Amino acid sequence: MYDGFLPTPNNLRTSMDKDLQSIWYDEQADAVRIIDQRGLPFSLDIETIDTVETMCVAIRDMHVRGAPLIGVAAAYGLYLACREAEGSGDGALREAAASLAATRPTAVNLSWALERQLEALVPLREPAERRLRALATARDIEAEDIDRCRRIGEHGLELIRSLHRRLGRRINILTHCNAGWLACVRYGTATSPMYVAHEAGIPLHVWVDETRPRNQGARLTAWELGRAGIPHTVIADNTGGHLMQHGQVDLVIVGSDRTSRRGDVANKIGTYLKALAARDNAIPFYVALPSSTIDWNLADGVKEIPIEERDPEEVRLVEGWLPERRQAARVLVCPESSPAANFGFDVTPSRLVSGLITEKGICAATEEGIRSLFPGSGSHS
Amino acid sequence: MYDGFLPTPNNLRTSMDKDLQSIWYDEQADAVRIIDQRGLPFSLDIETIDTVETMCVAIRDMHVRGAPLIGVAAAYGLYLACREAEGSGDGALREAAASLAATRPTAVNLSWALERQLEALVPLREPAERRLRALATARDIEAEDIDRCRRIGEHGLELIRSLHRRLGRRINILTHCNAGWLACVRYGTATSPMYVAHEAGIPLHVWVDETRPRNQGARLTAWELGRAGIPHTVIADNTGGHLMQHGQVDLVIVGSDRTSRRGDVANKIGTYLKALAARDNAIPFYVALPSSTIDWNLADGVKEIPIEERDPEEVRLVEGWLPERRQAARVLVCPESSPAANFGFDVTPSRLVSGLITEKGICAATEEGIRSLFPGSGSHS
Repeated sequence: MYDGFLPTPNNLRTSMDKDLQSIWYDEQADAVRIIDQRGLPFSLDIETIDTVETMCVAIRDMHVRGAPLIGVAAAYGLYLACREAEGSGDGALREAAASLAATRPTAVNLSWALERQLEALVPLREPAERRLRALATARDIEAEDIDRCRRIGEHGLELIRSLHRRLGRRINILTHCNAGWLACVRYGTATSPMYVAHEAGIPLHVWVDETRPRNQGARLTAWELGRAGIPHTVIADNTGGHLMQHGQVDLVIVGSDRTSRRGDVANKIGTYLKALAARDNAIPFYVALPSSTIDWNLADGVKEIPIEERDPEEVRLVEGWLPERRQAARVLVCPESSPAANFGFDVTPSRLVSGLITEKGICAATEEGIRSLFPGSGSHS
Repeated sequence: MYDGFLPTPNNLRTSMDKDLQSIWYDEQADAVRIIDQRGLPFSLDIETIDTVETMCVAIRDMHVRGAPLIGVAAAYGLYLACREAEGSGDGALREAAASLAATRPTAVNLSWALERQLEALVPLREPAERRLRALATARDIEAEDIDRCRRIGEHGLELIRSLHRRLGRRINILTHCNAGWLACVRYGTATSPMYVAHEAGIPLHVWVDETRPRNQGARLTAWELGRAGIPHTVIADNTGGHLMQHGQVDLVIVGSDRTSRRGDVANKIGTYLKALAARDNAIPFYVALPSSTIDWNLADGVKEIPIEERDPEEVRLVEGWLPERRQAARVLVCPESSPAANFGFDVTPSRLVSGLITEKGICAATEEGIRSLFPGSGSHS
């Protein structure tokens, strides 16, 4: 139950732990812990995952979401499978991998993490050795994600620092959706520069787009920022243009779900509108992304990236917290008979992107810029 | 109670009456009837107003809203005052006008309608004569609003007709917020060309921005269009840019709350973002407005039009229909401790506006264009 969002569930390491992650391995319990994100920000539920089957449910039913996080979760899932199937050989292992892969078939990180586990495990014959190696690989994948996100934050910090030096006042950043640590393990992508700048003592304020239809901005990003003590204000998605016209936004940072090799960015629906407003008001618009989101096979993102159409009920109904009943509820916001459409993403053309913040540094949103940081990547040119 | 939005309240003329208005005078009852818009689209409540006091409440508490409608309501309010105060002279009349004017002090149409009534009534000394004149003036104001909106629709029809001739298929129009008959008496402003084109047999489909925070698009425009049998789809406010990139929008029509003499348009927050996307995709972006919204004293709308900041709770909470309890409810969509900001309007610079659809015709969104239709208006140049 939500109570001023200071819940203290029994199984939470500590509710005020600044190092809370979206997923972690609990050595004492020999189990994986995750935040079941479905209840946020109204209920902070920590779930214990100790079988591959419960991990499959957690991924499929979106207790965890966000491409990097799903990869880490799948890697831990294969560790749990090794532990359960000890002595039963390759068949059980591959079966478990297939079950995990089937939970979210479109997430690239998921199959990548499973491949990496299988490559490490299949050559080993000793069950105990396999188990230890599976755990070590999962922890490596987790640590690498944290490291990549931290580096994105450090590169982004320089942008914020130079704005702060120039303006000599609090920096106002606008973000859309949740490209935060809840989508990764720690730091996040778009939020990482904000966390690192906040740590560095640079005064910040973040405009948080609520991000209809699923409200990941209002629900997740606002919760993350509040927990970190970063001043922020939730706004309707309609608001950013007005703020930019009136000097209230110094910098926009968003994430990316998929990036073409020319620098076009598929991100949560509505990102394109903010990029247009940033351009019209000469405000820098940056996209923070781990290089894993770059799709080297894609050139023109607007034409080539397929856009997921989701359940229209996410538009027709809004989920939130019903204070008087102390529970979550969904309310209908249009006539029962009116249809709705629900596109999950849009594509911002690279011409509107000031730069890409990656784990290797910041580059122009062009094929040349991207290749300067990632030489030799991708087979197409 | 909402039941597939076919309510049949006892006092409704007929629930399926195509000629339903937002306000009307009921001769048999000698009373004014309004739609209490607060319950729409979940409950169609017709309210009887037969004292100036209840009219004040209806305007102040937004049973009726929309600048043109408020003017008509105030004019009828003064008729009710004349009837009540019969024989008590000018003092009571001016007191009633002051009470009505105070309900929504910023609405220009309100004071304009009251001035017009007072000018007509004060010279008259016979109570019965005053009463009749007050009713006649209120009915004139109502009829003129209907006429202006109808003319806007006829001029807008030509735009839609020429698109239909050129494309030879269903025309997709995007609109934002509710500039519909619920904001006027009949037809509306932005919706009027849609209604007139639909009557003329041109196949249409309307993308309805839900228009957070108050969702007037999802709640009111979708209800209006559904009632008129016009195909429409409710979308999150984030969606328009993606649709425009992919050829799904042929024309944008929005309303205006205030228009500078150079053609800058203050309208519901988020309008500017749609204008940017329309420009980026070479889609015509028109603003439908009665000339009463033109403020001849304003040149640069972005700099000069003050933007109302409203209660942040409208952003933090979303009102809708709770199906299982069969009642309206508000749900919190962000952490309890996260602040929100709520700007009511933004200003679209005239450079992004393809044209203005007025009751006198369509003109360029420039001072020259506006003066060509309204020569001699305004004292500034």
